[in-house]
Amino acid sequence: MGSSLLPDLGTEIIIPVCAAVGIVFALVQWLIVSKVAVAPDKSHPAAADGKNNGFTESLIEEEEGFDDHSVVQKCADIQSAISEGATSFLFTEYQYVSIFMFGFAIIIFLFLGSVEGFSTKKQPCTYDSSKMCKPALATAVFSTISFVLGAFTSVVSGFLGMKIATYANARTTLEARKGVGKAFIVAFRSGAVMGFLLAANGLLVLYIAINIFKLYYDDDWEGLFEAITGYGLGGSSMALFGRVGGGIYTKAADVGADLVGKLERNIPEDDPRNPAVIADNVGDNVGDIAGMGSDIFGSYAESSCAALVVASISSFGINHELTAMLYPLLISSAGILVCLLTTLFATDFFEVNTVKEIEPALKKQLIISTALMTVGIAIVSWIALPSSFTIFNFGIQKEVRSWQVFLCVAVGLWAGLIIGFITEYFTSNAYGPVQDVADSCRTGAATNVIFGLALGYKSVVIPIFAIAISIFVSFSFAAMYGVAVAALGMLSTIATGLAIDAYGPISDNAGGIAEMAGMSRRIRETTDALDAAGNTTAAIGKGFAIGSAALVSLALFGAFVSRASISTVDVLTPKVFIGLIVGAMLPYWFSALTMKSVGSAALKMVEEVRRQFNSIPGLMEGTAKPDYATCVKISTDASLKEMVFPGALVMLTPLIVGIFFGVETLSGVLAGSLVSGVQIAISASNSGGAWDNAKKYIEAGASEHARTLGPKGSDAHKAAVIGDTIGDPLKDTSGPSLNILIKLMAVESLVFAPFFAAHGGLLFKIF
Amino acid sequence: MGSSLLPDLGTEIIIPVCAAVGIVFALVQWLIVSKVAVAPDKSHPAAADGKNNGFTESLIEEEEGFDDHSVVQKCADIQSAISEGATSFLFTEYQYVSIFMFGFAIIIFLFLGSVEGFSTKKQPCTYDSSKMCKPALATAVFSTISFVLGAFTSVVSGFLGMKIATYANARTTLEARKGVGKAFIVAFRSGAVMGFLLAANGLLVLYIAINIFKLYYDDDWEGLFEAITGYGLGGSSMALFGRVGGGIYTKAADVGADLVGKLERNIPEDDPRNPAVIADNVGDNVGDIAGMGSDIFGSYAESSCAALVVASISSFGINHELTAMLYPLLISSAGILVCLLTTLFATDFFEVNTVKEIEPALKKQLIISTALMTVGIAIVSWIALPSSFTIFNFGIQKEVRSWQVFLCVAVGLWAGLIIGFITEYFTSNAYGPVQDVADSCRTGAATNVIFGLALGYKSVVIPIFAIAISIFVSFSFAAMYGVAVAALGMLSTIATGLAIDAYGPISDNAGGIAEMAGMSRRIRETTDALDAAGNTTAAIGKGFAIGSAALVSLALFGAFVSRASISTVDVLTPKVFIGLIVGAMLPYWFSALTMKSVGSAALKMVEEVRRQFNSIPGLMEGTAKPDYATCVKISTDASLKEMVFPGALVMLTPLIVGIFFGVETLSGVLAGSLVSGVQIAISASNSGGAWDNAKKYIEAGASEHARTLGPKGSDAHKAAVIGDTIGDPLKDTSGPSLNILIKLMAVESLVFAPFFAAHGGLLFKIF
Repeated sequence: MGSSLLPDLGTEIIIPVCAAVGIVFALVQWLIVSKVAVAPDKSHPAAADGKNNGFTESLIEEEEGFDDHSVVQKCADIQSAISEGATSFLFTEYQYVSIFMFGFAIIIFLFLGSVEGFSTKKQPCTYDSSKMCKPALATAVFSTISFVLGAFTSVVSGFLGMKIATYANARTTLEARKGVGKAFIVAFRSGAVMGFLLAANGLLVLYIAINIFKLYYDDDWEGLFEAITGYGLGGSSMALFGRVGGGIYTKAADVGADLVGKLERNIPEDDPRNPAVIADNVGDNVGDIAGMGSDIFGSYAESSCAALVVASISSFGINHELTAMLYPLLISSAGILVCLLTTLFATDFFEVNTVKEIEPALKKQLIISTALMTVGIAIVSWIALPSSFTIFNFGIQKEVRSWQVFLCVAVGLWAGLIIGFITEYFTSNAYGPVQDVADSCRTGAATNVIFGLALGYKSVVIPIFAIAISIFVSFSFAAMYGVAVAALGMLSTIATGLAIDAYGPISDNAGGIAEMAGMSRRIRETTDALDAAGNTTAAIGKGFAIGSAALVSLALFGAFVSRASISTVDVLTPKVFIGLIVGAMLPYWFSALTMKSVGSAALKMVEEVRRQFNSIPGLMEGTAKPDYATCVKISTDASLKEMVFPGALVMLTPLIVGIFFGVETLSGVLAGSLVSGVQIAISASNSGGAWDNAKKYIEAGASEHARTLGPKGSDAHKAAVIGDTIGDPLKDTSGPSLNILIKLMAVESLVFAPFFAAHGGLLFKIF
Repeated sequence: MGSSLLPDLGTEIIIPVCAAVGIVFALVQWLIVSKVAVAPDKSHPAAADGKNNGFTESLIEEEEGFDDHSVVQKCADIQSAISEGATSFLFTEYQYVSIFMFGFAIIIFLFLGSVEGFSTKKQPCTYDSSKMCKPALATAVFSTISFVLGAFTSVVSGFLGMKIATYANARTTLEARKGVGKAFIVAFRSGAVMGFLLAANGLLVLYIAINIFKLYYDDDWEGLFEAITGYGLGGSSMALFGRVGGGIYTKAADVGADLVGKLERNIPEDDPRNPAVIADNVGDNVGDIAGMGSDIFGSYAESSCAALVVASISSFGINHELTAMLYPLLISSAGILVCLLTTLFATDFFEVNTVKEIEPALKKQLIISTALMTVGIAIVSWIALPSSFTIFNFGIQKEVRSWQVFLCVAVGLWAGLIIGFITEYFTSNAYGPVQDVADSCRTGAATNVIFGLALGYKSVVIPIFAIAISIFVSFSFAAMYGVAVAALGMLSTIATGLAIDAYGPISDNAGGIAEMAGMSRRIRETTDALDAAGNTTAAIGKGFAIGSAALVSLALFGAFVSRASISTVDVLTPKVFIGLIVGAMLPYWFSALTMKSVGSAALKMVEEVRRQFNSIPGLMEGTAKPDYATCVKISTDASLKEMVFPGALVMLTPLIVGIFFGVETLSGVLAGSLVSGVQIAISASNSGGAWDNAKKYIEAGASEHARTLGPKGSDAHKAAVIGDTIGDPLKDTSGPSLNILIKLMAVESLVFAPFFAAHGGLLFKIF
């Protein structure tokens, strides 16, 4: 046994300090980015500091040499159009979702309060009936509060990400005039702003919430951390709507714009004549940025909550050793420092000068952060954990040593890196798989789709083995606590991961702005190269998100099972097995709904775009302006309407199954949706990424082989465009939303576990 | 308790008599079909009876009035070319596979023999150690024998099916000159020949094997029925290669022919100028017919074996009540009689006169057979089962009443019908879903593919609920015995199911022959209408195959768990969970392999077809003949080569997992692949079916809406053709092969269970 080397006071200081360091670092990056001025007459955030005015002016004069004044103004106009569109959509979305959140908060309160009939008396603790714990009503109240807090933090995460991205896109475009390196660094720094703000914000809010809740709960840590799980539920519920709504928005606009623009009218991507082009760019920010930010924040919150709730009944939970208890938060704190150091490698220690150096630079970020973080985990495990302690593993006590916990976190971290690299191998056009897909375009769209689907299916194999190995190692060493910290390990370098991930859509938007502002071919080529690397890193980011979602869900599932007092989930009982097979079906149902939504919304967009091309005279010639606003409205309305049913499916399933079929069947549903959903999610996002890059491979024509397939407009290229369009909803809507499906159902079950255990399984009780 | 109403002698008579009735009925149908002469100068089977010569002549004269003599001769030539190609492929395939089978038979013998060190001494029985049972070596010998027997019966089933189909196709074409009704009846009768031969053959061989094995095993029924499980393994192993090899063959040819013929050269399907056209038609017979025959035979053999092996340790197994023991075979016997009666409704009681009546007539078959069979099951359950008996449910005894067993079989039977109807709803162009997919072709191939994939995903929902309900009911009433007989229930109307299923490819081929023989537009339209109904019924057949495969696998899984002496399969143990997630991944890996195989083989075919079009002068003008043989060879070589790896994946996984990771992990793998595979299988075959019929919907132009999308050659039609081509490998190769993946891994685990229990889990033993 023994206690931690780090005193409790040290923990209480280290965590908020690290969070503060993260926030300050993010602000410094923002400051640097803000020095690129998008409009000479506009006062920008840097100017607000009151000391950079003169410097800004000189920078603008430097830019003037590159291009005329009107281009900068155009960029500024487009940027503000995108930013306004995104802000207005997010506000509308949040309005609708907040109504839902309000309703769901009431459900949480009523269901959890009813467990002991709204009694305000103390209860004997679940795991030690000789002690007295806080009443179920307190859990109801504080779960509701932490739910709202989680949802709010998720909103802030997504919204800030969007604001930063729209702030950075035009700046990236303008810097592209000075060269690849400059543009890269602006896009990357902006990604870092988002990454660090998110990581630090999530950590800080959780830390504050725990400390405030402790004022009431005092030494009832079991109750305290049960109530904290609401934070994860709130984060993920919000993320669900962010991902699904944002995903439908972005792909309805993208698919709609491409179908008419590229295939029918033969105008390039992001051409300002295309009425859906602003909606498309807004979509990148609300879907890929805000949605992803909420998603990753949700994973982070859930894995922390899962680790905390499992740890609350470990020996250090019962003995109230605060440092050991907050080990998950200390890991995240170390992660912020490690990522900070890693970022400096990209921004200050090395320089990117050519297009070829972009992808390696981003990959180096992953490797450096993983290597450094391994050391960080070792140190934290050494100082924060007692050399050995006891956890509860479904009723049985289990002895765990601190080096085993280190291994659990490390295996998660490295599994993430492996998943990242495999994803890169299958989605980057530098390797065989994507080139094979591109080659199959020779015989048309059908073979392209067949090869792309097969590639997606095949890309599942190694990630699943990596996930299985990390589950096996962490599960064997430290049961569900091990799995939870493995998930946390995978997410410990979240700041770097998000920086890389956000970089993609920012570059994509930068390219769009260059095209729309009528900037030269050379600048567009620069942003395209940034974007191609961004496509791959986006796929890597999705790989991380899915891998961590799998681990998080399993940990939450384990915590649910503990809390619902089930000792085995035996496949060989009918109740569990039907849950398993129905659970495995849910990701298909959900994907069908989201894909159909994208399809229908895209059809509406196509009709509108066609209508404008046909009815606005001079549009094709560029003499008249299209009506961007109607397209934005179509995307907004469609996504808000279409997200209801998939959202309801995910949110209601655990409730219905728990209430009518009970906790055993619900366990089956969770296990089934987890093992089935993770496969579809990986294959969908990799198929989509591969099609996208196969198209880019043909367009870029960088090799002998690629040139035999191109150029743009050739039959092979047309086939590639069809594949790309099919991949859009797969990789940006249904695929990534599945992470949230599996996580959210698990965390929701965990929060409602006491209710289901007390009142669930009505159907079997009646018959 | 009490014993069965039916004496054992009655059982011993009823089963072979019913099998004989089935075979005679099949021969009668063949006789009727053979009366359609394909060549005036050829002596045909009917003539061999020596009494129909005059009648045949008069029929031919009747035909002469419709068309000139040379058309009949052409049909005969094409038919024999197809038949020869198919026979030669199957012989080559069987040669290769027999080498594999020989090797695998040795493995079975060695592994099972080694369980007790090849000792010839009697052993205490597994479930009652006071009794003595036959040595493990006997199980090894007899399992090997029954494995070979199963493989051989599967070969016969597939081969006979192919022979009948190639015998019937030209006859259907010729009858099409007389009208829809005549053509329908020939195709349907031929399907019935296959259905009844297969059902009766499977039953008879199993019955004989049990009786011969009993001579040695005497009253050691546990050993006897354990050895019989080899029959299922043999059947399914053969089916695997039949489905995968045949599937790759048929789709390589089909996709290759379509890509060049329809998309590049703008010539119709089955045009004799297309060099791949014979290979395509051969493919229908070796893939859709022979492969499917082996597949369904495998399901039938496995569900019988699963029920028998579970029953062998029930109270009637231990007390040696033969009638109750052979209840599964009696159900199949009753099925033959019921299907016989049902067939008469289509062939004799009602008549099909118009195109519109085809689909309802086939649907009526399903409804009538299901309704009649419910009565049949009730009677068999009443006379063959004791009013109550005891079965063993993973170590616990469970009391079962005969009416509960009736409900188990009935719920399987009716779940099959529901799955059939849902499949029809999602794949027939008479309903909304396919029409929506067709409508999405308006905006191109991309939306068509998105909508088709979404349709496939959505079509999973209700079938999974139907399967889950039947599992829940049968599992709750009679544990794994209940699940096994539920599977048998779903397969009890197999003769009718196969008749309907085989009808599709026969009509497809008939259409091909009409096109190649240069027959009139009207005849082609008749065969096309037959084929469109066939597409839907083929999808229904696949639905049955998948649904029953799910139930069969679960029953086999349960039997495996019993035999490996595991009492729980707890998801909350790392060993099981990693099995579960890796198992859920296997269907993706397998699909990736088979789809890639089809893609690569199709690319080779495309190159050859293009080469012939470019290098043979006069080919496009129809003055020169293409080189069909090279295309046949490409398909043959590709399918034989490409089936090795997917085949190895399926066959080796249980061995590797069992030997290195042990029975718990293997249980996880089986459960995971079952719950994940069934979803992909259903969605793949329904997406494929929907795309095919969406294309046919546009081509037929039967409604106002359809006409706005057409005609052939329009942009929407081209988009539909792309969808159809993508669907080909999904619905005819990877999708249906997945049934076999999940069944085969389960039955293989069952056969090797004693070996794994004795020597497995090496990796965990070492560490």
